[in-house]
Amino acid sequence: MATGGIDETTEFRPRFDAVGLITCVTVAADGRVLMVAGMNAEALRLTLDTGIVHYWSRSRATLWRKGDTSGQVQRLLELRVDCDQDVLLARVEVGGDGGACHTGRRSCFYRVVEADGATLRIVEEPQAVPI
Amino acid sequence: MATGGIDETTEFRPRFDAVGLITCVTVAADGRVLMVAGMNAEALRLTLDTGIVHYWSRSRATLWRKGDTSGQVQRLLELRVDCDQDVLLARVEVGGDGGACHTGRRSCFYRVVEADGATLRIVEEPQAVPI
Repeated sequence: MATGGIDETTEFRPRFDAVGLITCVTVAADGRVLMVAGMNAEALRLTLDTGIVHYWSRSRATLWRKGDTSGQVQRLLELRVDCDQDVLLARVEVGGDGGACHTGRRSCFYRVVEADGATLRIVEEPQAVPI
Repeated sequence: MATGGIDETTEFRPRFDAVGLITCVTVAADGRVLMVAGMNAEALRLTLDTGIVHYWSRSRATLWRKGDTSGQVQRLLELRVDCDQDVLLARVEVGGDGGACHTGRRSCFYRVVEADGATLRIVEEPQAVPI
């Protein structure tokens, strides 16, 4: 039985934002944060139904089955939701070369903000040809 | 010298959304994802200036120095930004009892979405009194 408020219920009630998206943080099997992207209701449904992670591409305004062109298909290992059910956490196994970023890095988070708060230090170089 | 597009520049150009927020994924020193929250420009500036993570609380519409009431102060170890500079990744050392979630769990991601796509399984019980 599903009981309690949004933070204790065992009913999945994903909360989409004003434009119909929910934020998804995607981590590799080893827990490393790879990327953050949005899912609409259809992308979330397809992710759960197929076990392959789908997003909504804001820039292209289209459903986005990650890996269709790059081979970096994300097989869903586990999906979690946060306390107020407005953020998802997907743990995935990545196909192809194992990367997730269009720049050719494994993770999208390859730059550290320096102490000056104004400049970035690149800490990961591309492993693959940018896509 | 800062050169290139948003994904290769070494200039920090955080991109805030239409309501002035940027998403921040916060992970513990061991890499575990603790929480996701928004920062406005002031919260980001204070985070960088003080080394203590600040957010913008949407529910309270106020600047939020995490830990002020709970003791779960987040000392910034490293801040990264993603390829298109619209998401931050903060690695932190957590004070107090080491938790981050208002429900008393260490992480906000304590529920797994079941295969049916409709129910949640609680995989972490509260370690502390909810706040």
